[in-house]
Amino acid sequence: MPQSYLDPFFNGKSVALIGASANPNKWGFRILANIVAGKFTGSIYPINPRGGTLFGLEIFPSLNKIPQSVDLAVITIPAEKVAMALEECALKGIRSVVVISSGFSETGEQGRALEKQLTLLAKDKGLHFIGPNTMGIFSASTSLHALMPPVQPLRGGVSYVSQSGNVGVQMLGWGMERGVGFSKFVSSGTEGNIPIENYLEYFASDPDTKVILAYLEGLKDGKRFLEVSQKTALAKPIILFKGGKTDAGSLAAQSHSGALASRYSLFKAACHQVGIVEVETTDGLLDCTSAFLHNPLPRGKRIAVLTRGGGWGVVAADACREWGLELPDLPDRVINQLNQVLPPYWSHGNPIDMAATLNPEALPRCLEALIKEDCFDGIIAQGVDARRKSLLMAEKLKKENLLKEVELEESDPASSSEVQLVLDLMDTYKKPVVMVSGLSSIARTVISGDREAVIFPTPERGVRAMAKLCLYGAFLQGR
Amino acid sequence: MPQSYLDPFFNGKSVALIGASANPNKWGFRILANIVAGKFTGSIYPINPRGGTLFGLEIFPSLNKIPQSVDLAVITIPAEKVAMALEECALKGIRSVVVISSGFSETGEQGRALEKQLTLLAKDKGLHFIGPNTMGIFSASTSLHALMPPVQPLRGGVSYVSQSGNVGVQMLGWGMERGVGFSKFVSSGTEGNIPIENYLEYFASDPDTKVILAYLEGLKDGKRFLEVSQKTALAKPIILFKGGKTDAGSLAAQSHSGALASRYSLFKAACHQVGIVEVETTDGLLDCTSAFLHNPLPRGKRIAVLTRGGGWGVVAADACREWGLELPDLPDRVINQLNQVLPPYWSHGNPIDMAATLNPEALPRCLEALIKEDCFDGIIAQGVDARRKSLLMAEKLKKENLLKEVELEESDPASSSEVQLVLDLMDTYKKPVVMVSGLSSIARTVISGDREAVIFPTPERGVRAMAKLCLYGAFLQGR
Repeated sequence: MPQSYLDPFFNGKSVALIGASANPNKWGFRILANIVAGKFTGSIYPINPRGGTLFGLEIFPSLNKIPQSVDLAVITIPAEKVAMALEECALKGIRSVVVISSGFSETGEQGRALEKQLTLLAKDKGLHFIGPNTMGIFSASTSLHALMPPVQPLRGGVSYVSQSGNVGVQMLGWGMERGVGFSKFVSSGTEGNIPIENYLEYFASDPDTKVILAYLEGLKDGKRFLEVSQKTALAKPIILFKGGKTDAGSLAAQSHSGALASRYSLFKAACHQVGIVEVETTDGLLDCTSAFLHNPLPRGKRIAVLTRGGGWGVVAADACREWGLELPDLPDRVINQLNQVLPPYWSHGNPIDMAATLNPEALPRCLEALIKEDCFDGIIAQGVDARRKSLLMAEKLKKENLLKEVELEESDPASSSEVQLVLDLMDTYKKPVVMVSGLSSIARTVISGDREAVIFPTPERGVRAMAKLCLYGAFLQGR
Repeated sequence: MPQSYLDPFFNGKSVALIGASANPNKWGFRILANIVAGKFTGSIYPINPRGGTLFGLEIFPSLNKIPQSVDLAVITIPAEKVAMALEECALKGIRSVVVISSGFSETGEQGRALEKQLTLLAKDKGLHFIGPNTMGIFSASTSLHALMPPVQPLRGGVSYVSQSGNVGVQMLGWGMERGVGFSKFVSSGTEGNIPIENYLEYFASDPDTKVILAYLEGLKDGKRFLEVSQKTALAKPIILFKGGKTDAGSLAAQSHSGALASRYSLFKAACHQVGIVEVETTDGLLDCTSAFLHNPLPRGKRIAVLTRGGGWGVVAADACREWGLELPDLPDRVINQLNQVLPPYWSHGNPIDMAATLNPEALPRCLEALIKEDCFDGIIAQGVDARRKSLLMAEKLKKENLLKEVELEESDPASSSEVQLVLDLMDTYKKPVVMVSGLSSIARTVISGDREAVIFPTPERGVRAMAKLCLYGAFLQGR
């Protein structure tokens, strides 16, 4: 990985908090609390003219009283004092600063002037700052939680830049619920110094980053953003959500990130061209991220839909059509194979409705028959862990001693072995099998041995994820 | 409530299971297990020529060996034997039968003939049957779980008819996760005897039903469906999902529910006209159901969006625009009131970005200022329980004895009191306040005192729910 001025933000060995406070209703308290609770691997230096101690740490009255060198500073003091703090950072040799403070370009003319001052100062002093008006950053490698809200994300292969702090940390929180782990997160604020595309560039060459996530409202240099995105997308998928698509949203974005939202339809087309995977809803962002983490890319968009029950097959077929995926007919060879394991009244078509069969061989045999066919680029497999569910009630009755007359098969390994089978098939055939099961109503990461997989709660969400995989697959093939 | 032939299905005091089995891989075993585990309040009579006992119940060799009268029969035996079983039901005086068995009109010509035979037989004998090819029924009033899968739904005000068993029981399962309770559920199968609109009609006059939920693939008598729906919709909201919207989905639906899916665009327009609230995705069904359970209807579609952080305000504004909701400007009066509790750099517009203020007075004061204005018909309130979250980390540190130097405010009642405040405001002003909070990524029911409320996970989902409330409100006003 080439050296980058962004390294100290994510790999720095010491952090100073300018504006540390003993008042729990100040961000200078909460961020310090988060850094301490997050067990930052380096040294922490709270700064406050009053001195004292907090969380067992010595509070330094100013940066220049710290005897050691400092890699990174986080600033929470009021806007009008930030410029002076930046100068002090420069004197101390700190070249990486996170400006949490708000009251800059997001607030109007005066704030814009204040931010401009910071921008020029940074250039002059040779330092870089994230923000202002940022909620902070997270780095898994140093366990740095320099964040306003108390979120402690799971660790994993996703790196994420967000022009909204709130939309940012929310995804980190949802990741905890869904089993999606992060390597790096940055709330980029109003981007007075570092534009969003610089983070994409950095993540592109970061070995810990597998998938890049972005929340975008506006761009200062659209051309450069697209150039960098295209290069980045050739290396790693970029999953992006655009805020400010409509007049109303765009107006709101101006008073928020301070950037003028671009005209959406043009933007959308440009994203598509440079290989950015745009996702239309915020709760689809992590869905699609998970799909990219755990599935190989399809070579085309010809999909087989496998389902235990007709209704979900209908919903999946509709969703495939709505997302532009194709549902080829089943070759006779496949029909013959499926006849051997399915009840006579199975659908004999695609979607393959297994007609609620209780035969444990049905799902694996169908999956194998489908995935090895050249006419299918991927599979939507619904009800992967349905058998487990069906036996739960019988087990409950057994425990309650209501079930004496019959012998139950011992605890059913079908569910985990089905996920394992899907993972094996994906390894062998290099085709995505997008799993769907309504056992939960969120997309959740499941662990099978030392491998991970994602199971989607509804066919619509699974199909959308598949469509995004197809889109990106086509981009890479067309490069 | 007028007498209906559907009463014995949901209020019957005794049930016979024709096809009861001691083999756990037979549905005749699993359904019996579910009925027993569900603690049906009446008598249960398993029927199987072999006799014996199961779950401590005597198995009768045939219906006519039961000394008592029987209200309801559930049939799981193979298709070709069902007609004879119906005759036996008639002889026993049973006029209500659930035909679980499949292999009827969903399978082709032969099956259609078999189903036709049942239809004629029922007419001849004066009995009614649900199905065939149904996953069964649930009734809260008798605690009847005559269902193939082992789901035990929460009890509540939703009654639900589904032309897909799988889509049906899935919602019951999701309801458990989200706190949505059901009064009655019926998987209507291929509807050889009772068409979907008959259930709507029944639910319309059922005092336990507050909101009606429907999954629909096809109609046998579209005109009658629309007439009944319109009457029903004047009494109670019908939340509907349509399967088979596209050519692919419609084709799949034919081999599933056996009904020809109507042309979707026409259907959609007709639904709108008769006041049916159509929801576009399956995971939106329960969202919208919850919104109707817990919110008053808006008188128009002029919405104020309140948010703690800019990004979510942008996303909400986009969503409002996409759903056709209006975002009126703030009256000066409101701006003046909000200036008193918000930091100077708040958005001064709609969306109202409270700019991450930590002032506990901000949310309640803003909500009150907005809801009492005539220019707003409803509010999207984001981050209702954010304060609770913000204090979690400080509490954690206190527990770990890292936090000695400062006194924390005692356990923060703000979160529950915010929900309570919202409920009070809705009572007072009869306007919906749709709450959004990313603390969870599912729409969840929260309890405040003896009242319930729903909190949506994303602004898009909250805004969609609001849009559906507006739609139905407009329908009722226009009648």
